[in-house]
Amino acid sequence: MPEDTGSSSIEYDDIDKLHSEKIRLDTLFSRRAKGLQASEIRELLKLTQKPDIISFAGGLPNPITFPSEQLNEITSEVIKQNGKLAFQYGTTEGHVPLRQEIAQWMNKRFGTNLDEANILITSGSQQGLLIVAHLFINSNDTIITSNPTYLGGIGAFNAFRANIETVTLDNDGMHIENLEELLISLDRKKVKVKFIYVIPTFQNPTGVTLSEPRRKRLIDLAEAYDTMVVSDNPYSELRYKGEPHSPLIALDDGTHVTYLGTFSKTLVPGLRIAWMAGSVEFLKKAILCKQSLDLCTNPFNQYIVAEYMNRGLLDPHIKKICKIYKEKLEIMLNAMDEFFPNEVDWTRPEGGLFTWATCPEHINTRELFEQAIIEKVAYVTGSAFFPNGGGENTMRINFSHPTNEKIHEGVRRLGKVLENAIKKPKTQEVITGI
Amino acid sequence: MPEDTGSSSIEYDDIDKLHSEKIRLDTLFSRRAKGLQASEIRELLKLTQKPDIISFAGGLPNPITFPSEQLNEITSEVIKQNGKLAFQYGTTEGHVPLRQEIAQWMNKRFGTNLDEANILITSGSQQGLLIVAHLFINSNDTIITSNPTYLGGIGAFNAFRANIETVTLDNDGMHIENLEELLISLDRKKVKVKFIYVIPTFQNPTGVTLSEPRRKRLIDLAEAYDTMVVSDNPYSELRYKGEPHSPLIALDDGTHVTYLGTFSKTLVPGLRIAWMAGSVEFLKKAILCKQSLDLCTNPFNQYIVAEYMNRGLLDPHIKKICKIYKEKLEIMLNAMDEFFPNEVDWTRPEGGLFTWATCPEHINTRELFEQAIIEKVAYVTGSAFFPNGGGENTMRINFSHPTNEKIHEGVRRLGKVLENAIKKPKTQEVITGI
Repeated sequence: MPEDTGSSSIEYDDIDKLHSEKIRLDTLFSRRAKGLQASEIRELLKLTQKPDIISFAGGLPNPITFPSEQLNEITSEVIKQNGKLAFQYGTTEGHVPLRQEIAQWMNKRFGTNLDEANILITSGSQQGLLIVAHLFINSNDTIITSNPTYLGGIGAFNAFRANIETVTLDNDGMHIENLEELLISLDRKKVKVKFIYVIPTFQNPTGVTLSEPRRKRLIDLAEAYDTMVVSDNPYSELRYKGEPHSPLIALDDGTHVTYLGTFSKTLVPGLRIAWMAGSVEFLKKAILCKQSLDLCTNPFNQYIVAEYMNRGLLDPHIKKICKIYKEKLEIMLNAMDEFFPNEVDWTRPEGGLFTWATCPEHINTRELFEQAIIEKVAYVTGSAFFPNGGGENTMRINFSHPTNEKIHEGVRRLGKVLENAIKKPKTQEVITGI
Repeated sequence: MPEDTGSSSIEYDDIDKLHSEKIRLDTLFSRRAKGLQASEIRELLKLTQKPDIISFAGGLPNPITFPSEQLNEITSEVIKQNGKLAFQYGTTEGHVPLRQEIAQWMNKRFGTNLDEANILITSGSQQGLLIVAHLFINSNDTIITSNPTYLGGIGAFNAFRANIETVTLDNDGMHIENLEELLISLDRKKVKVKFIYVIPTFQNPTGVTLSEPRRKRLIDLAEAYDTMVVSDNPYSELRYKGEPHSPLIALDDGTHVTYLGTFSKTLVPGLRIAWMAGSVEFLKKAILCKQSLDLCTNPFNQYIVAEYMNRGLLDPHIKKICKIYKEKLEIMLNAMDEFFPNEVDWTRPEGGLFTWATCPEHINTRELFEQAIIEKVAYVTGSAFFPNGGGENTMRINFSHPTNEKIHEGVRRLGKVLENAIKKPKTQEVITGI
């Protein structure tokens, strides 16, 4: 958890000497604000945007999947038929037809029994994470995540200065026995766990999926320890092989799971339309919270997505994009088999946007990053996804965004970088000066 | 400030007895969440939405002002030319061409010297308020607002459990002498004021405008007491007569004022595109905060607004809507002169969306509301805009949304309701039973 280091005061003191009339923001900022620190990731991501670099760094859907013509037609229709409402303020809960479409879609897809009262439209899933953090976390309250976990989740939880306890992952997702041990040990210490945050299917960053027995056990544990499960599910529809597991929200009694869904991966991210599903009792508070966050999610884009669903376009579109991504994932895994050194392990997900590589302990992927940039290939350093540090020998590798050709070539380049790093004896730091 | 009343526990206990497996949310919610209470206003607003009621209650722009054809054309162009980027994730700071357009527009309009680094795109001005609250307010920190002030501001500040000190208003805006006294007295008590929140022009809810000398004094005081000024400015462009005053951000050294601007009133609210302008140093923190709130404001609508500005359509559009609203304001003020009893005072704004009426002390506009609904007319009870209570004899009256005919007829009805209430001797409460 970020701590006030006091170091910023020194900076401001210097500024202050130069311009004595300027405000000293450090005397005004909240503890929350002082805890907000720029992540190195953002700086690294800037390097990856040069056109000659093959980037596996982002988590972006491929724009070839964007159904622009359909959206153009629908948008024009929305403006003509409903412009006066779509361009007006909307309700905090969200556009009723969209909430109905989502509830029906989830019921059909997941076997839930939801209606629009169980759905709150959010401005991206990130807002859902923020609402959860806002509603549950007092400073130093304990929550549990997997280790590693989604960066944006860490950001939202740190924004309210959470104490994040972590549970390791394997190819079947979060180690449920370790979770149980952690819950027992926290319970003994009278530490209340506010919620357990999971991305059950094709997890970001690792691509792994929580197994069916672990899903059931997770819900049992949440019920036994009276805690919430925040189930962040942007990727489950992007399944390229294998059979889907039971969604956590379908295993629950309807009160322990808050579900976060989004159109960012299945349709387009740029509309920023997502949703929370949960109990009416929980959503009542979430609506009050959202009201202070942004009054309402933009109605214009809600009308567009509602009409897109109403025309029955979503499921066929998902089928179409799964074909595209399935091929990309195969190309990536084949290239990794071909080019990655034996000393490196990686996940073999059945869907989603990411694979995850683990290098030998002595490899630091942050140090390796500069070498990768020289070889014109980029990834995200894995340590960013570890809430309390660690994972310096890991990397997240995205396969959804580059072209098929670039995936193959990029993996070749990255393989070479890894090969060189593993073969090379660990460099000794040369201490110069005093 | 909302307090944990403990009363909710009783409710949950009852639920708990019925369904012992259900989660007890009250054991998990943060203090912030417990402080979030549904406002009576929302319930009252529902009553105003019946089609036969003439509503002066909302704060909605009139949909006849929405430039739907232009937006349709631009939207189609954006999708064809820039669909791949407009439908993709965007940067947290916002779309660069939009930030440049806004900086140029402000410089031309306000005489500021800003560039895109001084502009952060937000998802409505409400998000700007929330960011300010998040960055500055620790629980029980003191901020200052006018009394009354904007409801959404109160919501954002209460979300972080601020201690809100207030300063009264007159027709020239916030009483600056009272503000100075308050600052002196808080300073003596070693209470740091985190910021002063003002809506300097055509204030919501009163419609009054801060005079030029008070503007200068406000900035002097902020500098003297090392505090921020949050200048929320959705209405200044909606000026129907008189001359504009200096924007606070143009009077400042560039570090004490955070400016909130929006397209909700000048273009359409349904795109939810607004912005913060301020020092780069402040915006750096604001960007980190926004990242945890929603990653980015939806790029699609940012492209649309950027193109709308790029085509030079905004200023002519503002001129056009000012004509429409000017007429509505005149009709309303004339009708008030004709129908409102002498005992009622009201503001005569030169722009914006609202007038504000003050009734004799013994009139309670909450009680009167039911009578108004019977007479098929509605307003917002003024007390909602008083952060610490009071204002029970006041009401906010919107003139932008109803048709011209309805404004006249609605004021006639409201005049009758007021007349009856003032003439009638105050009813005695009849105590029945024990």
